[in-house]
Amino acid sequence: MSSPKNYQPGSLVRVYDNKNIFIGIGYINPHSLITIRLLTRKMEDINHNFFRKHIINAINYRKRFLLDTNSFRVIYSEGDFLPGLIVDKYGECLVMQFLTLGMEMMKDMIIDVMNEILSPSVIVLRNDSQGRVLEGLPLEKKIIKGSLDSIPIINEGEILIEINPLLGQKTGFFLDQRENRLALRNYIKGGEGLDLFCYSGAWGLQLAQNGAFVTCVDESEVALSNAKRNFQLNGLEDRCDFVKDDVFKFLKKEVESGSLYDFIVLDPPAFVKRRAKVKEAVKGYREINAMAMRLIKRGGILATSSCSYHVEKTMFLDILRDSAKDAERNPRLIEYRSQSRDHPILLSVPETEYLKCAFLEL
Amino acid sequence: MSSPKNYQPGSLVRVYDNKNIFIGIGYINPHSLITIRLLTRKMEDINHNFFRKHIINAINYRKRFLLDTNSFRVIYSEGDFLPGLIVDKYGECLVMQFLTLGMEMMKDMIIDVMNEILSPSVIVLRNDSQGRVLEGLPLEKKIIKGSLDSIPIINEGEILIEINPLLGQKTGFFLDQRENRLALRNYIKGGEGLDLFCYSGAWGLQLAQNGAFVTCVDESEVALSNAKRNFQLNGLEDRCDFVKDDVFKFLKKEVESGSLYDFIVLDPPAFVKRRAKVKEAVKGYREINAMAMRLIKRGGILATSSCSYHVEKTMFLDILRDSAKDAERNPRLIEYRSQSRDHPILLSVPETEYLKCAFLEL
Repeated sequence: MSSPKNYQPGSLVRVYDNKNIFIGIGYINPHSLITIRLLTRKMEDINHNFFRKHIINAINYRKRFLLDTNSFRVIYSEGDFLPGLIVDKYGECLVMQFLTLGMEMMKDMIIDVMNEILSPSVIVLRNDSQGRVLEGLPLEKKIIKGSLDSIPIINEGEILIEINPLLGQKTGFFLDQRENRLALRNYIKGGEGLDLFCYSGAWGLQLAQNGAFVTCVDESEVALSNAKRNFQLNGLEDRCDFVKDDVFKFLKKEVESGSLYDFIVLDPPAFVKRRAKVKEAVKGYREINAMAMRLIKRGGILATSSCSYHVEKTMFLDILRDSAKDAERNPRLIEYRSQSRDHPILLSVPETEYLKCAFLEL
Repeated sequence: MSSPKNYQPGSLVRVYDNKNIFIGIGYINPHSLITIRLLTRKMEDINHNFFRKHIINAINYRKRFLLDTNSFRVIYSEGDFLPGLIVDKYGECLVMQFLTLGMEMMKDMIIDVMNEILSPSVIVLRNDSQGRVLEGLPLEKKIIKGSLDSIPIINEGEILIEINPLLGQKTGFFLDQRENRLALRNYIKGGEGLDLFCYSGAWGLQLAQNGAFVTCVDESEVALSNAKRNFQLNGLEDRCDFVKDDVFKFLKKEVESGSLYDFIVLDPPAFVKRRAKVKEAVKGYREINAMAMRLIKRGGILATSSCSYHVEKTMFLDILRDSAKDAERNPRLIEYRSQSRDHPILLSVPETEYLKCAFLEL
């Protein structure tokens, strides 16, 4: 192959191995650490029909494997063979992220196909992820179809949740934990507990509706007021409390005061986004999980997650083992889970698996 | 501590660390590689009440976390803090395994407690596991209460299954895959496929009742006739076929003849029971999974398992990745699962987690 610098950044290229055997077609960005991302291993045109075929396949995958929802991740980048593209569907509203230059250059065509297949009433572009900077792309957030005058409300099981596609984190909501939240409902049917890093309150809402009293903790005022509105929306305002605080500080105070809870949900943001920072992150996860374990009654439940790709499953369970030792507890793993099925894991791209979620009985 | 040889094999001992700090109470067997297995970290009597407390806790754990069943593993050794004891409940029939000398010596007391709490109409001892030989114990199988004149029939979801506690493998059935079989039902609602190493046909039965046509393959005549009876019992005799063959040989022939299936269930016995044999086992898993992948239609499903403890999750997924490369397929992991919740995983004893089960879309 000639030097990547000879290619127009973002353009489509055919890839051959050193014996001149065709490998596939991808898009190139000489400025990115991943120079080429493959779109196909076949000799085919990357056009309207190509995207149509992949997007219909992705929707069929959801219809087949998601058990019930009209809100889901429609396209999960490599997991749906479309690297650099994320599309989330919140009812009639689509939120799209073009993460790479190659995808950005095919943006109009992809939006056309999406309109054709799903005819959403609203389309929002959330092109404000930092990854775009590495690709040499500007950051932008905008509505390109319809309006957000009426805020999208989605169902998660029996719970209603308000989504803010323009101001919320990522695309406005975390669909990846959807199935885990619904699964936890099976095990917690009352009692008092904490929803830490509560964000929009989605974990706590499921449990409160199932009879529990939940204290939601987050250091963001915006997150808390969002969570509050969701509890009101579901008529659960009597089953919750809200604390604005840093979760580490909050837990330290609770441990000191000797509080005890029936359950704790611990769903922190990624502590580690780069491999170099793994050690620090491990320390953070160990500490925060140990504090949570100390605060749980005998027989109580800890639902704990990590969305850091660099902390893989074995490492995560090792951390929890260390936390348990620190907290002098002997927990049992009721269930180990990963991301929801609308985030399919491509076996050949281990990076597509990132979420770890453990339900522990203490 | 004085030499383990000074203790009566199987007797209870108090354990102290080298600073003479009390660690716990366990039972000792100087002839075993694991000299002492701890029963408690408290200074307490190991008596009728001790077992009563633990067995009631174990049953409560099942009531809380199992979603629906009257047949389950009541005691899962270390996972229920009773190392060396396995108890499976098939309706009114209990099957017990005393795997260590220490547990064997408390057998009568434990059987008394079980009778008191669960009052089963039948109790079977399946003390024929090879582990007993290492403990210096004889192998035996016997009915110690009631009779097996009427064979126990259990429910798995909507399916009926006949259990043979005296002649079947292990305690007569594999409860550890129960939740996985029920989960697979969500994804396979018809089509034609294989149930490999079918044993009593439990996977195939779920799928056949859900509209599929299933060919059951096993090299054991006893297993096949057992599976046949189960298909009859459920009125599904028109939705199945049976092949007596070695699964490796069968798959080779199928690959050669170019057969294609909508799904394959691959649930082999442990290929590896000792660490020294891991390499051979990996080769076997890779080969058998590659053949299965070749036989699956585009969009079809492979449900593949490994119950070898020494092949842990990361290794299992690596094997599947290699199989996919061999088969020139690009599968997606729909769901990764482990053993059913009546086999609780004790975080501090990693050996309690052994089952890996992956649902792949090809």
